Amino acid sequence: MEPIRLDDSGAAGFVSPQKLFSLEDRVEMAHRALHGKTGPGNEYLEWLDWPETMDPQEMARLTAVARHLRESSDALVVIGIGGSYLGARAGAEMLLSPFWNELSGKVRRGPRLYWAGHHMDSRYISALLKQLDGQDVSVVVISKSGTTIEPGLAFRFIHKYMMERYGREKAARRIVAVTDAKKGLLRDLALAEGFERFSIPAGTGGRYSVLTPVGLLPLAIVGVDVQKVLEGARWARKWYGTMGYTRNDTWRYAAIRHLLYRQGIKLEALIHYDPSLRGLGAWFQQLFAESEGKGGKGLFPVSLQYTTDLHSMGQYLQEGERHIMETAVLFDEDRSPLVIPATEPDRDRLNYIAGRTLEEVNQKAAQGTREAHIKGGVPYLAIHVPQATAEYFGALTYFLMKTCALSSYLLGVNPFDQPGVEAYKTHMFRLLNRPES
Amino acid sequence: MEPIRLDDSGAAGFVSPQKLFSLEDRVEMAHRALHGKTGPGNEYLEWLDWPETMDPQEMARLTAVARHLRESSDALVVIGIGGSYLGARAGAEMLLSPFWNELSGKVRRGPRLYWAGHHMDSRYISALLKQLDGQDVSVVVISKSGTTIEPGLAFRFIHKYMMERYGREKAARRIVAVTDAKKGLLRDLALAEGFERFSIPAGTGGRYSVLTPVGLLPLAIVGVDVQKVLEGARWARKWYGTMGYTRNDTWRYAAIRHLLYRQGIKLEALIHYDPSLRGLGAWFQQLFAESEGKGGKGLFPVSLQYTTDLHSMGQYLQEGERHIMETAVLFDEDRSPLVIPATEPDRDRLNYIAGRTLEEVNQKAAQGTREAHIKGGVPYLAIHVPQATAEYFGALTYFLMKTCALSSYLLGVNPFDQPGVEAYKTHMFRLLNRPES
Repeated sequence: MEPIRLDDSGAAGFVSPQKLFSLEDRVEMAHRALHGKTGPGNEYLEWLDWPETMDPQEMARLTAVARHLRESSDALVVIGIGGSYLGARAGAEMLLSPFWNELSGKVRRGPRLYWAGHHMDSRYISALLKQLDGQDVSVVVISKSGTTIEPGLAFRFIHKYMMERYGREKAARRIVAVTDAKKGLLRDLALAEGFERFSIPAGTGGRYSVLTPVGLLPLAIVGVDVQKVLEGARWARKWYGTMGYTRNDTWRYAAIRHLLYRQGIKLEALIHYDPSLRGLGAWFQQLFAESEGKGGKGLFPVSLQYTTDLHSMGQYLQEGERHIMETAVLFDEDRSPLVIPATEPDRDRLNYIAGRTLEEVNQKAAQGTREAHIKGGVPYLAIHVPQATAEYFGALTYFLMKTCALSSYLLGVNPFDQPGVEAYKTHMFRLLNRPES
Repeated sequence: MEPIRLDDSGAAGFVSPQKLFSLEDRVEMAHRALHGKTGPGNEYLEWLDWPETMDPQEMARLTAVARHLRESSDALVVIGIGGSYLGARAGAEMLLSPFWNELSGKVRRGPRLYWAGHHMDSRYISALLKQLDGQDVSVVVISKSGTTIEPGLAFRFIHKYMMERYGREKAARRIVAVTDAKKGLLRDLALAEGFERFSIPAGTGGRYSVLTPVGLLPLAIVGVDVQKVLEGARWARKWYGTMGYTRNDTWRYAAIRHLLYRQGIKLEALIHYDPSLRGLGAWFQQLFAESEGKGGKGLFPVSLQYTTDLHSMGQYLQEGERHIMETAVLFDEDRSPLVIPATEPDRDRLNYIAGRTLEEVNQKAAQGTREAHIKGGVPYLAIHVPQATAEYFGALTYFLMKTCALSSYLLGVNPFDQPGVEAYKTHMFRLLNRPES
């Protein structure tokens, strides 16, 4: 594979080479702490070698189960929230048609895809249940413990629906649980009902689980070649396991964003020019916000879709408060070349670009934005991804997880805990009078 | 109508009553400058009285054209970007089914809705053109000047497609242009081809145009009662035209966010617990980012969807850098009451909330989050909207536009210009070797 490259030339005017150079030792320490499993949160490092250590027999079982569900379903409902949802969504949006659910079955060759359990909106659940009527439905329910209330409630509604439609036993054959191997409410429920099960590795937190069955199973059911996802991640594990700024771009990315944060930058905007990366942006936000946003620290991660958001947030990026850095994710390949037609007469005055591809114009917009924002005082990084394929989805997510872990260690926080996420739940459960368990 | 109310009790611990009280004079000055049309950008204040001044005959023509297109189309393509797109999208997402395009024609009773011209992704346009095959198509193309490159290029592809499918004349009867009344490339093109036309009021900028044909025409075609949208806005114009903190909640909202900004808050997160408000969040981001983000100033607006994003950004909100305020938009009505079923045995241990509605749990999550975040140091405002209807869509957008104009005047910037949005275009056009015009 061609490597994913970080172009940091757009940050050169904002970070001094000396500072960057002198940080390399600390990045090396972070790298050694990660690989030596000596840093904080070291019980959650199974993701680091996972692309090599995932059991091939388990992978074979996963693809077999996925094939069966794909062939017997018009609709797949994936129930999960946070790390049990965003990875699969990122992959599906990057790799499937933007109109997936509207395509005819022949073109899709995989079930329609519906998310649930990612919020508690009753109108959405009501509409979803109506939408499933007349379709053959499979369900993947993803929760490490089974106690998270959003997927728990969604599964209650959907399990009831499935039992009413198919009967208890047949429904059970259409439901797969992805959960802890040894304990938890969802595991117990799956055992009692006879659902097929896949395990969330005990040593992997939700936001680092995209390459485990959490991300791979839903993607496999809609037809993504998940062997290739894992191959890409295996390549990335090797390539970004090396030492030094020159070879390992996760080192430079982690170092530069850290230096910018120390210099007063408050936000990192992950930007892209391809709407299929919206899901990756949301996944990135969780990865970095939960890993770094603690102890009063951390860059606030936002996700912007250009050129769309240049026509909404662009004014601010150009001239608002100077506390933002941009990191672009750019595909180097044009997945669907489309030549701009000429018209006669040239009423919209666009004939000067007729005959060129739309993607070429999109790329010029990206270059123009880069120049304008750097001039406006926005440090700019670019992650070049050679192709928009399953392999590179695996490689890119691994690249970003590795960067995030290094960056968190530089910041001095544990990248693998999330002590703050319980706070709202505690208040909510009190308000709901939940019995002590 | 019941008023839209701002609950500012969650900001009480962060803003001193004295400071708030002593700012009221300046808010009054801003209000007077706005209504007296004596402030910066006063040539762009047509939106302020628009709910009263819109020509009823023009409204009747709009609804008649919309009805005709609705009845003769399976698919509506709306071409626009920024302010020519986000308002209609906000309304459509708030008021249509979350699975609109997948519904059967009988249930929808309006065309499928597709956006275009909001980016330059070739894969999207290719997929869209395929998707239109076999459907009867109408097109609304929205651009004040007709020179914006994204909608310009999208229209080139789609106009060509329409002419190939329907022939030039019949295609023209399926295309409506919303553009400047007196000049511009799109106006000229529409005249030459014989498209139906609606005008963007000359004294209204894009991000303040949601209540003009820019927002109303696409909404009317998919079946939204746009008379009610305008009625709601008329009500809001009156209610929020009054003076003083006590009656006029836009005054307090503008004042509190201004004081928080002065105290070091850098971001305002518009949050909601209803996924149908995602589009409103994107519209809000443009409104505030373009109005305030200039001269090195302004709160950076972000949009978060809870409880989804509590499982991604929640950790940061609770414990990351303390530079964030939250403003919740909450519907007081439950649009689709859904009772949580009991199960036997209680394997997921959720029977303690069986018999309650899902919305009640969602509301407890909102209250719990409010308490947790305030304790964590996040100032919290809540905008209570009595119902999720067309009237309140009109009232809410007016409420937010009014707040934004006041807030910008407090900040000392012109809310109606966007000097920074041309920068990337200038670079892009140079890279594309655009001929001088």
